[in-house]
Amino acid sequence: MSKSSHKPVIAVIPGDGIGPEVVAQAVKVLIAAAGEDTFEFSQYELGAQHWLDTGEVLSDETLADLATRDAIILGAVGAAPGSSTIPSGLLERGLLLKLRFEFDQDVNLRPSKIYPGVVTPLSQAVLDQGPVDFVVVREGTEGMYVGNGGTLRQGTPNEVATEVSINTAFGVERVVRYAFELATKRSNKVTLVHKHNVLVNAGGLWSRIVDQVATEYPSVEHDYLHVDAATINLAVDPQRFDVIVTDNLFGDILTDEAAAVTGGIGLAPSANINTARTYPSMFEPVHGSAPDIAGKGIADPTAAISSMALLLTHLGYEKEAQRVNDAVSADISERGIAKRSTVEIGDAIAARLA
Amino acid sequence: MSKSSHKPVIAVIPGDGIGPEVVAQAVKVLIAAAGEDTFEFSQYELGAQHWLDTGEVLSDETLADLATRDAIILGAVGAAPGSSTIPSGLLERGLLLKLRFEFDQDVNLRPSKIYPGVVTPLSQAVLDQGPVDFVVVREGTEGMYVGNGGTLRQGTPNEVATEVSINTAFGVERVVRYAFELATKRSNKVTLVHKHNVLVNAGGLWSRIVDQVATEYPSVEHDYLHVDAATINLAVDPQRFDVIVTDNLFGDILTDEAAAVTGGIGLAPSANINTARTYPSMFEPVHGSAPDIAGKGIADPTAAISSMALLLTHLGYEKEAQRVNDAVSADISERGIAKRSTVEIGDAIAARLA
Ligand SMILES: CC(C)[C@H](C(=O)O)[C@@H](O)C(=O)O
Ligand SMILES: CC(C)[C@H](C(=O)O)[C@@H](O)C(=O)O
Repeated sequence: MSKSSHKPVIAVIPGDGIGPEVVAQAVKVLIAAAGEDTFEFSQYELGAQHWLDTGEVLSDETLADLATRDAIILGAVGAAPGSSTIPSGLLERGLLLKLRFEFDQDVNLRPSKIYPGVVTPLSQAVLDQGPVDFVVVREGTEGMYVGNGGTLRQGTPNEVATEVSINTAFGVERVVRYAFELATKRSNKVTLVHKHNVLVNAGGLWSRIVDQVATEYPSVEHDYLHVDAATINLAVDPQRFDVIVTDNLFGDILTDEAAAVTGGIGLAPSANINTARTYPSMFEPVHGSAPDIAGKGIADPTAAISSMALLLTHLGYEKEAQRVNDAVSADISERGIAKRSTVEIGDAIAARLA
Repeated sequence: MSKSSHKPVIAVIPGDGIGPEVVAQAVKVLIAAAGEDTFEFSQYELGAQHWLDTGEVLSDETLADLATRDAIILGAVGAAPGSSTIPSGLLERGLLLKLRFEFDQDVNLRPSKIYPGVVTPLSQAVLDQGPVDFVVVREGTEGMYVGNGGTLRQGTPNEVATEVSINTAFGVERVVRYAFELATKRSNKVTLVHKHNVLVNAGGLWSRIVDQVATEYPSVEHDYLHVDAATINLAVDPQRFDVIVTDNLFGDILTDEAAAVTGGIGLAPSANINTARTYPSMFEPVHGSAPDIAGKGIADPTAAISSMALLLTHLGYEKEAQRVNDAVSADISERGIAKRSTVEIGDAIAARLA
């Protein structure tokens, strides 16, 4: 994409828990990479505290305002599971998922790679099989995340609770196409992950669309794994993957496992891309608000920082994106086992860009 | 449970792919452990070939006949993903899941442990954290597996496909209760895995029931993980788990990852238990029909064999179950890296029981 003619304005939503801590470092690195005058930033105080203060999760005015921005940086939102002050799902569904859905962020892009020197939970034998470098293209606006379903006779012995996964040819095709296109710029391999032997309706739709789109990309090989088998492959043979395309829920699950096996959720970036470019795309670490370590200054900001490379690429700053990636890669390779603070890691990566 | 007064009759469904190969070894070991005269066996030729021959997956007569048996041993069913002769899901939904649902096998029990000496994909650092030994109590008759949903405008650009997860207080409570009861015989810890921040209806139901049942088990500690976080923990801290309780789909996914990190799907047994004991329970390896290695005599029968220990326990043969577990454990610890055939492994374990 070519750069925009006006100075891009980036919305910053630090959010909850460790969100504000990692976002501060991400913005610092973004400025170090792109220069002081490249972007304007506009901060939005949304999340748990905002809700406690105002009773509002995300107003229509704020949503309309965010829609005018060129990109969004989001830290993390959500209370601790079991929080007694904040209902489960309120911030996730009312803020994070609301943005993904309202801004039609159809491609949730989540790269995973094992950086040289990084500590992973995998054995040397698995690592010796070769370098690990793949991308998950997670659908972002459909499936089990549509918020469709309900509860009957809640709290009684006769309660029934449903969740409906909705999948459309329109929604599936655009992310499948994105995955194949992406594969042509990588190692020409797409793996569909689903569970079509049980979820025959949704799985049938996904499989048929992959087969159709594949005919347009003769240079791209494609295969299929059931989601349960995919979790095995991520642990024993992560080298087999290039581009994984999958639905919203399976993508959520697989990308956390992918982050774990490639060195931890502290390193995993993501982009929620509105491929139509009619709304801002959103860049955020894969990790959540991690209330257990919030406020201690020990959260790893690398995932948020790497997400800035995805933002730069999306806005047309390829060279700057590459520099962020290189700085992150160098920092990771040299970090050793000494624990550094959130700010120290941000400073170290920013210093490499100076 | 006390042993039945009549000679128990065990239905054997070898099924597809490697199913028949591993089941032969499992039955051999079962007889070696319990003696020639303890059980009667009745074989059922069901699966891909039966369907191709007759056009029938499972007739009402066969189902009624199976219902009279004391237990079922199942190998594996299902064609290769992408098979052109057998529609995806036909055998899974028409046979395997049909049995789980018709026989109300509410608890799908899947133990995972790292045997001393086994090769796992985990690093020494993770293994050094301590022994890994946990059980997943997967709900077996509800959730995304109910086969509820459909397709509109199939094959057109306007296709919509849905899958409905149905969850009931009745169905959730009995497996949660089973999990807490089991925890009292183990390390007194239950972890609920769900995604209640997104699936607020189903997740709310599960969380409330766990909280309720927990009050009856003051000695059992309980906690909660989102399914995505659980996949991380399985890789970096599997020692944290004792009893995991979760829904049908999350259980499917987690138990494959659990099998992978504890030494492979070739070792993972399972029991589909009808806790009401009004129908036969079913014992099967976690792995599938593995068409890629079928017919080569190289499938590891250990998972099917370990499932016989679960069968023996269920039918009241505790001592014999323990002997099977000990034989399996000894075999695994001494197997080294030399590849043995399916039959050689079965023979070796049976020999330890002679
Ligand atoms: C916080 C939560 C709603 C979110 C999701 O499930 O998508 C998170 O886990 C993620 O992966 O971005
Ligand atoms: C074969 C398939 C239908 C089955 C399931 O999804 O339950 C299998 O993966 C399992 O875990 O037993």
